[in-house]
Formats: sequence, C-alpha cells, structure tokens
Amino acid sequence: MKKLINKPEDFARETVEGIVLAHPESLKMLNDSYHCLVRADAKKPGKVAIATGGGSGHLPVFLGYVGYGLADGVTVGNVFASPSAEAMYEVDKAIDNGAGVLHLYGRYGGDIMNFGMAADLAAMDDIEIAEVLVTDDVASAPKEKADKRRGVAGLFFAYKTAGAAAEKMFSLAEVTRIAQKTVDRMRTMGVALTPCIVPEAGKATFSIGEDEMEIGMGIHGEPGIHRTKLQSVDCVVEDILKKILEDLPYQSGDEVAVLVNGLGGTPKEELYLAYRKTHQILMEQGINIHRKYIGEYATSLEMAGMSITLLKLDEELKELIDAPAYSPFFEQSR
Amino acid sequence: MKKLINKPEDFARETVEGIVLAHPESLKMLNDSYHCLVRADAKKPGKVAIATGGGSGHLPVFLGYVGYGLADGVTVGNVFASPSAEAMYEVDKAIDNGAGVLHLYGRYGGDIMNFGMAADLAAMDDIEIAEVLVTDDVASAPKEKADKRRGVAGLFFAYKTAGAAAEKMFSLAEVTRIAQKTVDRMRTMGVALTPCIVPEAGKATFSIGEDEMEIGMGIHGEPGIHRTKLQSVDCVVEDILKKILEDLPYQSGDEVAVLVNGLGGTPKEELYLAYRKTHQILMEQGINIHRKYIGEYATSLEMAGMSITLLKLDEELKELIDAPAYSPFFEQSR
Repeated sequence: MKKLINKPEDFARETVEGIVLAHPESLKMLNDSYHCLVRADAKKPGKVAIATGGGSGHLPVFLGYVGYGLADGVTVGNVFASPSAEAMYEVDKAIDNGAGVLHLYGRYGGDIMNFGMAADLAAMDDIEIAEVLVTDDVASAPKEKADKRRGVAGLFFAYKTAGAAAEKMFSLAEVTRIAQKTVDRMRTMGVALTPCIVPEAGKATFSIGEDEMEIGMGIHGEPGIHRTKLQSVDCVVEDILKKILEDLPYQSGDEVAVLVNGLGGTPKEELYLAYRKTHQILMEQGINIHRKYIGEYATSLEMAGMSITLLKLDEELKELIDAPAYSPFFEQSR
Repeated sequence: MKKLINKPEDFARETVEGIVLAHPESLKMLNDSYHCLVRADAKKPGKVAIATGGGSGHLPVFLGYVGYGLADGVTVGNVFASPSAEAMYEVDKAIDNGAGVLHLYGRYGGDIMNFGMAADLAAMDDIEIAEVLVTDDVASAPKEKADKRRGVAGLFFAYKTAGAAAEKMFSLAEVTRIAQKTVDRMRTMGVALTPCIVPEAGKATFSIGEDEMEIGMGIHGEPGIHRTKLQSVDCVVEDILKKILEDLPYQSGDEVAVLVNGLGGTPKEELYLAYRKTHQILMEQGINIHRKYIGEYATSLEMAGMSITLLKLDEELKELIDAPAYSPFFEQSR
C-alpha cells in the first residue's frame, strides 16, 4: 500500500484537520468534530441551506463543495463509509437560516438511511427538510430504473445549480426543483483502469488485469457494464457518449455543460485527450458546449480512470451554471 | 502501460488540441503548431511579455500558466523533451509588446540551449530578451551550487510574481529582478513513490520497490537524495522541511507562501495530510503562512508523490503573490 499517510485509522480525521488548517476562512468544524463541517463565513438570514455528505476518499466531493454558491454544510464519514444521522442533524441545525435545508447527496444505501433519520430529528426542531438524491450514473441501473442509479461526479452540477439558486434567495421548494431538474437532465458514465486501496483495509477494492479496463465502474469499485481489453481513449469516449446520449432525448442545437472528471490517479493530459474526443463527437451531433469542466471533481482516492457527465441545459440552468461560486477546491469568478 | 491515450506518438499534440478546443478564449496556437501557444486575449502595448516552455507531461506546467497575471506564451515539447529554438523564437515574436520578453523556465540542459538560441534569433529582430532560470529543487545540487539546481514546482511561484509584476507594467529589468528574487527565496523538495511511463517509451522511468520511496527525486525521475522504506507522511514532511529550511536563513516571524504539490497520481487527501504537518512544523518555528496552494501544480504524468515549496516573502512579493491571476488551469480572484 503505497500511500503518504500516517496511521490508516487516522486518515479521514487528519485529512479534514489539514483542510481546516489550510482554509479556516472557508470551513469550520462543529464541536471539534471532523465529521461536521460548515461554511465559516457569515450566515445569510432567509437563505435556503444545502447539506451534503458521505464517505471520505472522494475529494473534492463532498466537503470541497461547501462554499459560496455551493453547499453550506457537510457530514464527513470515514473512507467510503456513511457518516452518522446524528452528525447530519448537527449540521442541519447549524446551517439552517430559517428557510429550510435541502439534503443533496448521492444515492447510496447508508446515506439514504442516515439522512432520513436526520430529517426526522430536524423535523422535531421544526426545521423544514427537503431531499434530492443524485442518480447520474447510467451504468448502475437501466433507463427504466433511472431513479435507482448511484450518484457520481454529477454531484458537482447539482451543487452548482442548487447552490446558485439558494444564493439568489429561491425558496426551498424552488431550490429543490432546480436540484431535481439538474439530476433529471444529467447523465454520467466512467471507466476504471486501476482499483484504489482503502487505507484501513490495506488491499485493492477489486482486481483487474494489467491489460484490462472496466467501463461503467462505480466510484467505490462497484461493477460496471463490461470489462474489456485496454482501448484507445477515442474508443472509450465513443462508448461512454453513446450510452449517455441515448439515455436522454437529444437533438441538434441542444446545449450542454460537460464535465470530464479524473478519478484520482489519471493525469490531466489524459483528461484533455478525453475532452478532445468528447468535443468532436458533440460538435458532429450539433450539440453545443456551453461550459466545460475538466479536472478532478469527484475521485476514488488514487484510482486511475475518468468519467464524462453531460448536463442538458435550458436558459434557467445556464444562468445558474454560469453564476460565480467559490470554495477551497473550486473557484469560478467568470 | 495503463493509459487513456491514442497512439503514443500523438500524445503531446492531441493533448494540446484538447486544451485549445476546451479553452479557445484563453489559448491559441501559432501557425497551427501545437508547439507554440500564446494568450488569446488582446495584447497590452508596453507590457513586458513572459515566455516559458519545456517538455510535455507536467500539466499544468508549462502551458497551464499562460494567462492573465502569469505568462504570455509557451513552447511545448514532446513528453519530457525540450521544444525547439525556432518554436521559442516564434513565440517571442508573437508575444512581444515592445517592452521585451523574459524567458522564464526551469533549469534543464536542452531548454537552456534552445532558449539561448531563440534569444539570439530574437536579438536580430531587436526584441530585448532577459532570462531567469528556476532552480528551486534543493535535492538536485548542494547549497554551494544552488544556481545549478533543477527547476520543479517552484516554477508556479515564479510565474505568479513575475506575471503580476508584468501586469503592473514593471519594466523588463524589474520583472526580471522580481523573477530572480523569487527564485532566490524559494526552495522545493519532493518525494516519489512510483515512477511514470512516458507514452512513446512504454516503460517506467525508473524502478522502485513496493515498499520504497525516494526522497528528492526529480520530476523526470532523476535520482534523489536517498531511497528508504515507506515512511509516514509526517516523517516525510519533517525530512523535507528540514532540508528546505536549513538551505535559507529563517527566523521566527518570517512569512512564507507554501505550495504542497501533487505529482499526478497522489490523491488530494494525501496532499492535505502533508499540508497538515507542514502547517504544524512552521507554526512551531514561528513562521507565518501568508498564502497556501495545495493541489497539482507541476506533475510527472501519473507519478505518485508530492513536493513542498516554501517561498520566503517580503512586502513586495506578498503583494505580487496576492494579485489576481487566471488561466484555464489556475484561478485566483481573491
């Protein structure tokens, strides 16, 4: 296990400590717990608050999206493990500005259960809670069961649009509508070349041959659609975009936001090779790229691989995608 | 060789094509050559221009630092290979605003030779050329030969301060002074856990045991100071900071900018573990961290490892480090 860490059992806590030491102007812990982080800047009375959370090991997901125009608070679990309902409830109480809290997170069993319990606890305090599950991974369930899919890199787009709506002082119902609309209009698929190692486990999350890749693998190593011999990046992108584009109705003239996301171990050069082919295919189909994001937005520790997300835009989503946002891990001023 | 690429011989060209397709508002090629890139925004008459360049495989170095408050043009070689003097000369001609051009790049043999030849060519066109070599890698030569060291992640700080000075319309002599002062006041050391594979070579740049790391390794796999068994990140940071801090006179109350740089394959979580210990050690010594940068700023393809750079600040450098800057790979608005 080649990692620059201290004791494996301290990995998640020490990572958060490093982040809070680096960015005290942006993030602060609640009750000295690394499981609960909220924005350090002043609260805005009447603004809908957005809470997210999930396991560690996916930076910038989840805590990297706590900031202006994004989320307001996050619960941090250990690596690939859901944080507790109690921690989620503490964050809800801390970030509520009197306008309610949207629970916005990826669709995983433990998180659904715990956010549900947290919502029950918050309700007893008369905090209004809404919920949107991000379900963008087309490889994780067929089209007929799209609402049962996992949430992966598309989380970023959901934070971006819902966060911008909240800064514009939209109501909880409206922020929730925006988040759900974003989820409904986006699709992601990835490819993994190598596994990662969870520090406390000390062994690879799955095994894969030296000349193999797996299309559609999830960000915890969940099985994908098919395992093949290594292919060229152009072939991989064709394969992924075919699956994404056939899952929603697209026509010439449509506009999208594109996210080419690195899973942690893949160099930026390769992400730009993937963007190159993505751009070419979308141009051929008459689909306009309104904005693109290329880099590490949702990772699996040191896993090699990448994913592509398309968000089909309309005028409302374009304005929200274009709005300024900043956190220690993401900055968009223009 | 597990890479998301097409033909290895097309890697550098296709990467640049992807970047220019993604960011046409920021970067453009000269004469349709992927070897020559310049800022796409309007030139500013009388502003000193900054040219940089070197081999591919180090994104965001070099071309990722062409932008506002940074460099104006770049020559791009193939992976780990110097670009040609002719290409450098073309960039010099394209970016000169009548106030001269600073060649600002890392100290490597091929680049020195080629930038020297380009300077001779530019001189024949009456373009005034100055040169500053970045030599921040303490592991690459002893203190007595500090000017013979290699340039690594500290390149970023040199672009940042010299680029800010150029935007403030400093003269070529002043921009050069700022760049050299930045080089003189910064030190970097890294650690490598795994090699990388140059696409055209198809094999690892060096071999290293499953339980080994190499302190001081260069960004092309140049030998470091010593190879050891894997150590905790806290031990590695102690080792690196000891070497960096003893190489310049430091005293309590000094202020620094810190860069914790990932080499490509190391997760952000581990970089924040390294920052955590860096922060603790500097606090213990009474050294104040004025600004910190944590992420991938200079890489070696998919190499696992990281480096730490300290830039010792004074009031002049603080103002330049704090100035706004943006490129497709770097944004600082606050």
